[in-house]
Amino acid sequence: MTTVGILGGGQLARMMALSGAPLGLRFLVMDNVADACAGQFAPMVVGDYRDEAALTEFASKVDVATFDFENVPAESAHWLTDRVPVFPKPRALATAQDRLAEKTLFQELGIPVPPFAAIDTREQLDAAIAQIGAPCILKTRRLGYDGKGQFRIKTPADAGAAWDALGAQAGKVGLILEGFVHFQRELSVVAVRGRDGEFRTWPLTENWHVDGVLSASLAPARVDEATAQTAFEYARKLAESLDYVGVFALELFCRDGELLANELAPRVHNSGHWTIEGSETSQFQNHLRAVLGLPLGDTRMVGMACMLNWIGQMPDALPVLREPGGHWHDYGKEPRAGRKVGHATLRADDAGALAATLRRVGDALERADQVAPVIAALAR
Amino acid sequence: MTTVGILGGGQLARMMALSGAPLGLRFLVMDNVADACAGQFAPMVVGDYRDEAALTEFASKVDVATFDFENVPAESAHWLTDRVPVFPKPRALATAQDRLAEKTLFQELGIPVPPFAAIDTREQLDAAIAQIGAPCILKTRRLGYDGKGQFRIKTPADAGAAWDALGAQAGKVGLILEGFVHFQRELSVVAVRGRDGEFRTWPLTENWHVDGVLSASLAPARVDEATAQTAFEYARKLAESLDYVGVFALELFCRDGELLANELAPRVHNSGHWTIEGSETSQFQNHLRAVLGLPLGDTRMVGMACMLNWIGQMPDALPVLREPGGHWHDYGKEPRAGRKVGHATLRADDAGALAATLRRVGDALERADQVAPVIAALAR
Ligand SMILES: Nc1ncnc2c1ncn2[C@@H]1O[C@H](COP(=O)(O)OP(=O)(O)OP(=O)(O)O)[C@@H](O)[C@H]1O
Ligand SMILES: Nc1ncnc2c1ncn2[C@@H]1O[C@H](COP(=O)(O)OP(=O)(O)OP(=O)(O)O)[C@@H](O)[C@H]1O
Ligand SMILES: [Mg+2]
Ligand SMILES: [Mg+2]
Repeated sequence: MTTVGILGGGQLARMMALSGAPLGLRFLVMDNVADACAGQFAPMVVGDYRDEAALTEFASKVDVATFDFENVPAESAHWLTDRVPVFPKPRALATAQDRLAEKTLFQELGIPVPPFAAIDTREQLDAAIAQIGAPCILKTRRLGYDGKGQFRIKTPADAGAAWDALGAQAGKVGLILEGFVHFQRELSVVAVRGRDGEFRTWPLTENWHVDGVLSASLAPARVDEATAQTAFEYARKLAESLDYVGVFALELFCRDGELLANELAPRVHNSGHWTIEGSETSQFQNHLRAVLGLPLGDTRMVGMACMLNWIGQMPDALPVLREPGGHWHDYGKEPRAGRKVGHATLRADDAGALAATLRRVGDALERADQVAPVIAALAR
Repeated sequence: MTTVGILGGGQLARMMALSGAPLGLRFLVMDNVADACAGQFAPMVVGDYRDEAALTEFASKVDVATFDFENVPAESAHWLTDRVPVFPKPRALATAQDRLAEKTLFQELGIPVPPFAAIDTREQLDAAIAQIGAPCILKTRRLGYDGKGQFRIKTPADAGAAWDALGAQAGKVGLILEGFVHFQRELSVVAVRGRDGEFRTWPLTENWHVDGVLSASLAPARVDEATAQTAFEYARKLAESLDYVGVFALELFCRDGELLANELAPRVHNSGHWTIEGSETSQFQNHLRAVLGLPLGDTRMVGMACMLNWIGQMPDALPVLREPGGHWHDYGKEPRAGRKVGHATLRADDAGALAATLRRVGDALERADQVAPVIAALAR
């Protein structure tokens, strides 16, 4: 009997436990809140990720540890590696936790990135804006997620407001300024790498964000094969350089046919949720297979899939459940503004059928805005 | 928040909980053993199905109740219906619990059955053997499963041995004598009926038993369309006559092109496990959708699927995990002779590819015998 420990007990841990159960695995989830939604289907250790007593209990009960949450303190991850195998390895985690380290690595590997600069002081901010040019985005180096910890600078005159908003973070989590990319589309590679180095990707995914939060994903992305192959090569280089084990996502901007790397998510990723029903093997089960040194599952998909995120509160399930390719995912979370509470995946054999499904669901849920960009992409 | 109560905590309850979690459901499982495998993923009430205190606790915590186990005492099911909605309804359960009531209903509905007779005494047994002819099978009317509680009578001279084996059951669970059917194949209809009467079937499934226990299933069954339609019609008639709600399986013998009904399983069924990966909606999620009055999910499949049962102990997972269409299901149970401990589902685009997969898996696991009849069927 193998017990997999998961640091973080949100929907990613929950879906991982559900998809790992058929492998005969047990799970233990550690989270700092007792009502974390993964706890509905797996036992929990409640405690802060820096609480050594809680970590000790967690480590003593698991055979291998992984993450649902990339911001677990690097020291806690290191502490754990002395006691139990941890995948992905803390070094990969540490790189992905820091936007500066991440972008520096992308550059070293020849993966194009938007212009960026580390920012420690107000003076550096002004200098960097002058050099990179506006518009640009000031971001915290660490602990950002769902677009939090970001300030968009439209003109150099916004520097003061940006510093007011985030300057206090400079000495804590660090800051980075990035050039704003006028992309035509956002893409992500969801990939998995085994302990033995075997590497697989799911079909490239196209993503739409609203207010910095993922709103919809479409697979396969509506891009040419050469673009997809370039994206896969970037992901492979990255995974190999980090000796990465498990699933990760590489977020990319596509501007005038060129790909620019945005960030690496060192875990299963929201843009890969469609793989649960849309692919032979889900990202969740393949993450577990990788972490456990098992053969990786097939990542092919049949037809097309669109994932719609539910933010804040769950809409009515019926319009989705009525669709032949409609699949519902309620994470069992309390509604709260800005919170990811669930998603739907809609599958269809071809673009026309998927667009029709999206139109019906969008109308029924009064979410025409959410589905519109996907429908437009399907018409490309 | 809706909590579904499941009476019985075996692998069927476990797979039901796993497939119902995405609907945002919570589960409560009742079983008389504390280590029932569904308890690894759902909270449990441990108690006998006749224990009113345990039933009271169970009823007070659930919004709707259903079964993983058809032999829940009818009185307990009735007791529950006064407190909470129960699906399928106790009448359907009672009919399916009794082979005599079941076969009588089949007959009333014009569904062909093997010759049968109720047996209360040794004299009746001899008379029935004389009338039905040998070979025939003496079965307990109630509580049989996986071929248990059956005695095969090859010649009238076996009557004494049959009575020695099962005669004591005549006054307890009752006995029935059935003519032995020299079938070419066994089939099952796995079907679902909603609260509103909507009826759907998955593609017809072909099954192979070893020592009375399901060994392998293949979908779609290798039979002509007319046979499949007849089978579906029998299932529909049966469901309507019982006002059935939920998933059930109708087991059929196919002899010289004619279908004879064997039994009705009033629950998700082992021959429908392939639907987890092989169909747009699994039998488990559709059972929950039906029980909750939600729209039924699409039952179509793409390609073909074969399920192999693992009895007694789990074989090596690797040969299955290495197959592109290979899916593993370890129920997390202790090994024990004759116990269903897991299954694998193998998917492929066509019969040739599925046969090749089965050959590889059969060879690697030294289970050529288990896969041979499926491979032969695929060559038909
Ligand atoms: N340099 C940029 N140019 C243009 N748009 C950007 C840039 N950086 C971020 N964005 C937009 O904001 C979104 C969120 O940014 P980013 O991925 O950096 O933040 P995050 O907090 O890690 O979000 P998530 O957790 O959703 O990935 C991006 O997907 C993109 O739509
Ligand atoms: N009358 C019959 N003629 C020929 N074979 C039979 C007959 N009855 C049962 N069998 C064989 O024995 C198997 C198990 O019988 P049956 O379905 O009645 O028992 P069970 O205990 O309910 O099994 P399960 O739970 O696996 O359905 C059948 O699938 C079939 O292979
Ligand atoms: Mg991002
Ligand atoms: Mg049977």
